[in-house]
Amino acid sequence: MNKIKIGIVGYGNLGKGVEIAISAAKDMNTIGIFTRRNPRDITSFGAPVFPVERISEFKNEIDVMILCGGSATDLFEQAPAVASLFHTVDSFDTHAKIPQYFELLDGVSQKSGKLAMISTGWDPGLFSMARVLFDSILPDGENYTFWGKGVSQGHSDALRRIDGVKNAVQYTVPNSAAIETLRSGKQLEISASQRHRRICYVVLEEDSDAKEIKEQIVTMPNYFAGYETEVYFISEEELLADHAGMPHGGSVFRLGRIKDTHNQLMEFHLQLESNPEFTAAVNVACARAVYRMAREGRVGALTIFDVPLAYLSPHDPAMLRKEML
Amino acid sequence: MNKIKIGIVGYGNLGKGVEIAISAAKDMNTIGIFTRRNPRDITSFGAPVFPVERISEFKNEIDVMILCGGSATDLFEQAPAVASLFHTVDSFDTHAKIPQYFELLDGVSQKSGKLAMISTGWDPGLFSMARVLFDSILPDGENYTFWGKGVSQGHSDALRRIDGVKNAVQYTVPNSAAIETLRSGKQLEISASQRHRRICYVVLEEDSDAKEIKEQIVTMPNYFAGYETEVYFISEEELLADHAGMPHGGSVFRLGRIKDTHNQLMEFHLQLESNPEFTAAVNVACARAVYRMAREGRVGALTIFDVPLAYLSPHDPAMLRKEML
Repeated sequence: MNKIKIGIVGYGNLGKGVEIAISAAKDMNTIGIFTRRNPRDITSFGAPVFPVERISEFKNEIDVMILCGGSATDLFEQAPAVASLFHTVDSFDTHAKIPQYFELLDGVSQKSGKLAMISTGWDPGLFSMARVLFDSILPDGENYTFWGKGVSQGHSDALRRIDGVKNAVQYTVPNSAAIETLRSGKQLEISASQRHRRICYVVLEEDSDAKEIKEQIVTMPNYFAGYETEVYFISEEELLADHAGMPHGGSVFRLGRIKDTHNQLMEFHLQLESNPEFTAAVNVACARAVYRMAREGRVGALTIFDVPLAYLSPHDPAMLRKEML
Repeated sequence: MNKIKIGIVGYGNLGKGVEIAISAAKDMNTIGIFTRRNPRDITSFGAPVFPVERISEFKNEIDVMILCGGSATDLFEQAPAVASLFHTVDSFDTHAKIPQYFELLDGVSQKSGKLAMISTGWDPGLFSMARVLFDSILPDGENYTFWGKGVSQGHSDALRRIDGVKNAVQYTVPNSAAIETLRSGKQLEISASQRHRRICYVVLEEDSDAKEIKEQIVTMPNYFAGYETEVYFISEEELLADHAGMPHGGSVFRLGRIKDTHNQLMEFHLQLESNPEFTAAVNVACARAVYRMAREGRVGALTIFDVPLAYLSPHDPAMLRKEML
């Protein structure tokens, strides 16, 4: 079998997860990892590492590039450059900028004759699939998304940016009473901020004022203000021992009605011991779909909404019908 | 807007559900209901009713026919006849015969230049989607499907066929301890029959021997033998008052691992107050997809694995990316 040849751009937690997921996929190989750092400073699980400047040399060697660059800001620069040479998959996750990002990548990839799949992962990604599927089936209803229990990277970063904070981890915890309400068939009247609470484990710098820092945290706009927030000050040893993992998860619910009389509840739920490794596994399945759709001549930007499920699977369609339908 | 014109073949619980779901869909109309019964004996929610013999007169009036004929046996005869004239959607659910049924419909619809979508609904259907999606993302893992709590039509029918039974309803109940085991990240060692128990509410004919009938039930092969089965004898009044609904649901789980170290749990869950109305709502979303894919020139048999999610949705792709991705 000809294996699908994958390149990985960026080698943080997500890039590592992609290399691991590809080693578990029988139909794919990692050809190279591309980094802005010195390749000698990177220890991969086995794939060769190259400076990102050499990426164009691999134009005929790599079928799909999975973009694992850090922030959304990175992707706005990096993705168009790579999409002018390769089919790409990324996990762009700034929800508000998705339409703009889609247009940008669509322009580049239509011109280069490549396929660029944006915003894969689990949210955006699998949770988005659930929202569209549920809404399509039960038009009279409401979607509810809950996140956690899990570590929010964005909120942990916000804590670490506070003067006097040495290190910190923030857990997002869904309101279990709200979930029970939905499961009993009742709509939620509470706001999004009441659907989650936030638990912060904070390591202080020496001489920091705990009371003052706690006040800064619980009043921080967009992040903690309006939420039920718990703050615990712990030692760095305890943080590293007990809070080094990256668990996450959550649920998408739809409570829909048919003819006002029958409640129908749909739920998609994830409970992940490693958020970046799972996000990576979704990216890898999407790279398989991009490879196949590109061979059929499709070009431009696309999302998970445009991909038939059979394209994500390593198994052939007749086997899927026989064993999984 | 040109609405999609739908025909409904068969008007039992499923056909009624389809008419209800179409009335909730802004982009669709029911043009006609086709029945083997005398149309005068049928009271629809508003759509005109015709004898099924007149179906070919509607060749240019109807975009997609949704087949709601009773049993799988009906569909083996009915579906090829309808698919030679119309695009079709059905909920054929005899898992073991799906490959054979697919080949049959593919032959007919390739020849007629139509599109025939088979085996939609929730299992097969949405649960099948979950199985393929989960397996694609976490190849190292196991799928588990649980049904219930809900009324099993097949098992209720099996009870009613027993001599001396006047009426009966059977509930399938998932083993909650097994579900808790999965949620704690442990694989299940127990067999499929240990994952569910069966609760039977039975109305006896006069002069029936309750003890003897209970024995017949709990030892019935393929249906109850091997399962934990509870049998309650009740009056017909009680059955009609408390057990006339058709609730159902269940869950598809995948417990997958990444690199042996991280458990990742995925779940798709349904909790339905009306099984046939929900199945119908899935059929209707699929009819929308069939209409669109047919307009792109696609012909032959297909399944939910071949349909991009965006095709199921009444909303346009840019709106889906903006609001739901």
